[in-house]
Amino acid sequence: MVNTGGDRRPKYQRIADTLREGIRSGEYGPGDRLPGENDLMVTHGVARMTARQALSVLRDEGVAEARKGAGVFVREFRPLRRRGVQRLAQRQWGNGRSIWSADIENRSLEVDRITVADEAAPDGVAAVLSLADEETVCVRRRRFVLDGKPVLLATSYLPASLVAGTAITQEDTGKGGTYARLAELGCEPVHFREEIRSRMPSKDEASQLSMSAGTPVILVCRTAFTDEGRPVEVNEMTLDAASYILEYDFDA
Amino acid sequence: MVNTGGDRRPKYQRIADTLREGIRSGEYGPGDRLPGENDLMVTHGVARMTARQALSVLRDEGVAEARKGAGVFVREFRPLRRRGVQRLAQRQWGNGRSIWSADIENRSLEVDRITVADEAAPDGVAAVLSLADEETVCVRRRRFVLDGKPVLLATSYLPASLVAGTAITQEDTGKGGTYARLAELGCEPVHFREEIRSRMPSKDEASQLSMSAGTPVILVCRTAFTDEGRPVEVNEMTLDAASYILEYDFDA
Repeated sequence: MVNTGGDRRPKYQRIADTLREGIRSGEYGPGDRLPGENDLMVTHGVARMTARQALSVLRDEGVAEARKGAGVFVREFRPLRRRGVQRLAQRQWGNGRSIWSADIENRSLEVDRITVADEAAPDGVAAVLSLADEETVCVRRRRFVLDGKPVLLATSYLPASLVAGTAITQEDTGKGGTYARLAELGCEPVHFREEIRSRMPSKDEASQLSMSAGTPVILVCRTAFTDEGRPVEVNEMTLDAASYILEYDFDA
Repeated sequence: MVNTGGDRRPKYQRIADTLREGIRSGEYGPGDRLPGENDLMVTHGVARMTARQALSVLRDEGVAEARKGAGVFVREFRPLRRRGVQRLAQRQWGNGRSIWSADIENRSLEVDRITVADEAAPDGVAAVLSLADEETVCVRRRRFVLDGKPVLLATSYLPASLVAGTAITQEDTGKGGTYARLAELGCEPVHFREEIRSRMPSKDEASQLSMSAGTPVILVCRTAFTDEGRPVEVNEMTLDAASYILEYDFDA
């Protein structure tokens, strides 16, 4: 990025820049302790308040995190690489594997806080699914926990009339999950649209995802369409941004 | 999202929830003034500090913003919809149009702070572009300003040996831009990979993008490949998250 400030920037900013550069270059790796206030006071000849401000810049940016009584550490960042296109390939769930198994390699995944309910559709969802008036949706909520860290909240909406009586209305949707069941109903999802936004989490989201301060969420809203262009599922996902890299491959 | 707290949540949280629901339902639209501290004290029978905390929850989430002396307002949000796949279609830049023209409809776009330089490649970029030792890159930096609001910082890296002597090394790359020039060199970009992350902005990024507090940036790193799989450009983009929805369409 262009440095617009040069040497006229406040001292704590320049110290923060030096530390950030040290993190970028690998001098301080993930999980390493950064120099403390006392170190910075000596190295840069500044007051404690300036040293403290420098460290808080990096905390506010989500680059570093404070651990009580131990100091300030470089954020451990071993993100999941979520390959948007490949993970939804039909050969994946068509063979009874979960979509998730494409992402997680050999890491341990648990899905918890699963709830399934028949509910009135939120306005936006009703519009996307082209529901008739009063038509309800099957709402599947769950949380994904990777290596003990919650990384994703997901809420899927499917037309209740379509999925009634199938395993989609059960906690365990069976081999290949919801998409394999939709295929059995003659509604195989073959086209997808993902919309991506980012914002700061609500208190509730931050707590459910055990997020550290200064970290945004990524919102992914996926709509799944059949061959005839019928929308059969809307899945609203909330991702801890520190846990993810999203990747999309496509041709011109 | 699942409400895990119910009525045991602190009062200011419950007031914030009510206001947030009002924003979601459209009762308070973009740019509308939210009830002030005095209003909230009366409506909810709480102390000023509680009312203030409730409003600050929404500010911290980036849902609302304070305007000095005027109150707290719902964030104006008229995001750009960036269609990841369609905007890079060859017919777009092949016909002399900029990639951007697919995004902006009839809004006014200016590109400023353009710099072009021959530089040593950052390690990550050198690896992706498979550069030889000491091979330099042509670095194009610029900022995109939409309707007077800066929304995107972009830095493109291209192998200097490839683009030497072409308009890619000039501020104005000519009709169809960098991709049309690459095509003339026999290096037409036909395959793309976009990696997406999100984090809080640095002070410098927040200032260059005129961002309000509580708003993250979305980082998009695009690599463009030729038909033979040769990587010819890495473009690191920093987007104001409040200004964008990214959309990707693809088939299973």
